[in-house]
Amino acid sequence: MNEYIYKCFDCEKEINSTEIESNLIYLCPDCGTAEKNEPLKGVLQIIYNYDSIKNEITREEFLNFIPGQIKYYPQLLPLKNKLDEKQLSRIKFPQSPLLNVSIENYSVQIFDDTKNPTLSYKDRASLLTVLKAQELEIKDIAAASTGNAASSLAGICAAMGLTSRVFVPKNIPQSKLLQIQSYGSVVYFVDGDYDEAFDLCLEIASKRRWYNRNTAYNPITIEGKKTAAYDLFVASKGNLPEYIFVPVGDGVIISGMYKGLWDLKQLGWIDEIPKLIAAQAEGSDALVRYYESGEFTYHPANTIADSISAGAPRNLYMAAAAVKNTNGIAIRILDKLILKSQSIVARNTGILIEPSCAVSYAGFQKMMSEGLIDSTEKCLLMFTGNGLKDPDALKQNNIKLEPKTPQAWQEELLNE
Amino acid sequence: MNEYIYKCFDCEKEINSTEIESNLIYLCPDCGTAEKNEPLKGVLQIIYNYDSIKNEITREEFLNFIPGQIKYYPQLLPLKNKLDEKQLSRIKFPQSPLLNVSIENYSVQIFDDTKNPTLSYKDRASLLTVLKAQELEIKDIAAASTGNAASSLAGICAAMGLTSRVFVPKNIPQSKLLQIQSYGSVVYFVDGDYDEAFDLCLEIASKRRWYNRNTAYNPITIEGKKTAAYDLFVASKGNLPEYIFVPVGDGVIISGMYKGLWDLKQLGWIDEIPKLIAAQAEGSDALVRYYESGEFTYHPANTIADSISAGAPRNLYMAAAAVKNTNGIAIRILDKLILKSQSIVARNTGILIEPSCAVSYAGFQKMMSEGLIDSTEKCLLMFTGNGLKDPDALKQNNIKLEPKTPQAWQEELLNE
Repeated sequence: MNEYIYKCFDCEKEINSTEIESNLIYLCPDCGTAEKNEPLKGVLQIIYNYDSIKNEITREEFLNFIPGQIKYYPQLLPLKNKLDEKQLSRIKFPQSPLLNVSIENYSVQIFDDTKNPTLSYKDRASLLTVLKAQELEIKDIAAASTGNAASSLAGICAAMGLTSRVFVPKNIPQSKLLQIQSYGSVVYFVDGDYDEAFDLCLEIASKRRWYNRNTAYNPITIEGKKTAAYDLFVASKGNLPEYIFVPVGDGVIISGMYKGLWDLKQLGWIDEIPKLIAAQAEGSDALVRYYESGEFTYHPANTIADSISAGAPRNLYMAAAAVKNTNGIAIRILDKLILKSQSIVARNTGILIEPSCAVSYAGFQKMMSEGLIDSTEKCLLMFTGNGLKDPDALKQNNIKLEPKTPQAWQEELLNE
Repeated sequence: MNEYIYKCFDCEKEINSTEIESNLIYLCPDCGTAEKNEPLKGVLQIIYNYDSIKNEITREEFLNFIPGQIKYYPQLLPLKNKLDEKQLSRIKFPQSPLLNVSIENYSVQIFDDTKNPTLSYKDRASLLTVLKAQELEIKDIAAASTGNAASSLAGICAAMGLTSRVFVPKNIPQSKLLQIQSYGSVVYFVDGDYDEAFDLCLEIASKRRWYNRNTAYNPITIEGKKTAAYDLFVASKGNLPEYIFVPVGDGVIISGMYKGLWDLKQLGWIDEIPKLIAAQAEGSDALVRYYESGEFTYHPANTIADSISAGAPRNLYMAAAAVKNTNGIAIRILDKLILKSQSIVARNTGILIEPSCAVSYAGFQKMMSEGLIDSTEKCLLMFTGNGLKDPDALKQNNIKLEPKTPQAWQEELLNE
């Protein structure tokens, strides 16, 4: 259906899409490597025939679509079969992810992906991966994940009738593990960290010929995540913000956001890509260190924000380029401030985010208070996972209440 | 803005809306009582001028609305001020709650309210209550709840800038309590059960002049919940199912569903109201017993499905009438089957529901397998709360996994 090729991010080799897909190739055949505790090399990008798309659809037609519905963007998806609308109707995204709110007297926009089918942004990548697996007639999809990618894959596979096989490290938040199990996923619970689960998943999936949804490793994950950029473009009627604050762990959400916006620029529908601000937890700040020093060094990650906990961000180089190409910056946030920001956001917006997303607000607040952003500039915060996915973090963030008898409450409240 | 009156469900007394609202009257002034461990008497209904509405809007125009957006139904809401669209835009409901799925070879429709702003159906009632409080210029709203109504009120108040004050019994699931606390609610943690928290809330809210969102007690809650019927009507393009399976605790969701459908019938837009099937947990089956014997007796509730745990359903009589008037029935489901159904639904649809909703599917499955429903008849299951709100139930429902080393997994998976 669509014309597209794969192109290596590092060596720029271009490869025919059928060759890549039918042979289950994920990284660049020339330079790709997936080494333990290292960012991936040779991550593939997907490039469309933008001239041909421009002839098929205008900016105005595109802006009239409904956000959150992948079916409106078929020309810009790496699929060869026609989308099956009946099947897609089993997966519902929110009406619009875009909200205008006020937090601590700042007017700010929110991109809210916390009410997606499995309550995280990852559903965008899982859905597209599942559609590709169906096209390839593969029934088993594997992924390694600290939680959200796995629970997302598990839920989307359950809805679409495929088998999910997930490799999760033992420090996964319990609610996410329960969510994965509930969807009937086959769970490989690994006595190791995320990086070890990732490597194990690569090996087993390859030998068993399961389709691999590992984030960044499978370029389809980046293409799935880019749909947020289209939804933002459509929901804002083409009026993009100046800054987008993105929580960064493995670096795939920010890479996807950049890719979607880059597509729009190739189509001539936007002049400039908003500045992408990469926000990381201090205990998992590989991108910030790379941004500062130009070098990657592996440090085991340690942060309460499990969704952005990655000692070796798989998509480090593409994420760093997204920041650099847009004149953005990369910032680190202390865990203490992450928890504080989670509370501030919930109390001011009614949106309960998981800790990872709180780095968006904390980073924004920091830049505003330091005068690095002008108050007339429009800022967007990406919220990528629901707070109920991690009740242990909420427990750390709220006091333990002691019950009182009705009589005690009566005395206290009626004598105030 | 709208013409409507209040009418007592029991004695049928009709009362001017301004009199009720400006005096913060909730139950019928003539016959209303809220006794400990008893269903409420004198619950008020809200009746519109249907002839006047029919002149303003046609069935076809109504069917062209977008479901999940209260702003499309202003004529049928008990509000006197014009809706503030900017403020409403802070609260986003899903694109459409209606899904067609297949579970264990049954084709069935689902009404999915598990991705609402705070992940439960209760947001429908909370939103309308908050709008009414704003109209009355009251800043504090109180509610008693086993979890969802309170977390919903807390979240909607946070989004809209009001103060929520919630009375919760000590057996509330921990994640729901954490959700409530996170939104910045003022929490009165009661060493007692739901019925005691309900009574305490009535007393304190009345004396402190907080607006009261107690379910059924405030008729606005029923009007909020009825919007599901409109959303169903619109999402199905007017093709309603023959049966609707509703989880019943306090009886307000089923009463709201009935009321919305009844409104549509008054408008001449539907000929018949679908049969409403009230599904209860065996350990909280007051409505089933009332339906069978015609008498209410108080038994303390005991079920894993906390959201439908109510020894004295506050809206018992209205709920029973909804079942009777539609030729529905009331059925009870064992806790063991509730947990099993929760798993079946998640594995077949990718929708993780909380235990309470599982009674919908269990009841449907029971009636189908017993041949009480013909397979050509269309059935709809109401899913009213997200499974992540109650991880303890998920824990009971899934085996505890033991981690294995990557080496152990390699040996196991590569020698299969």
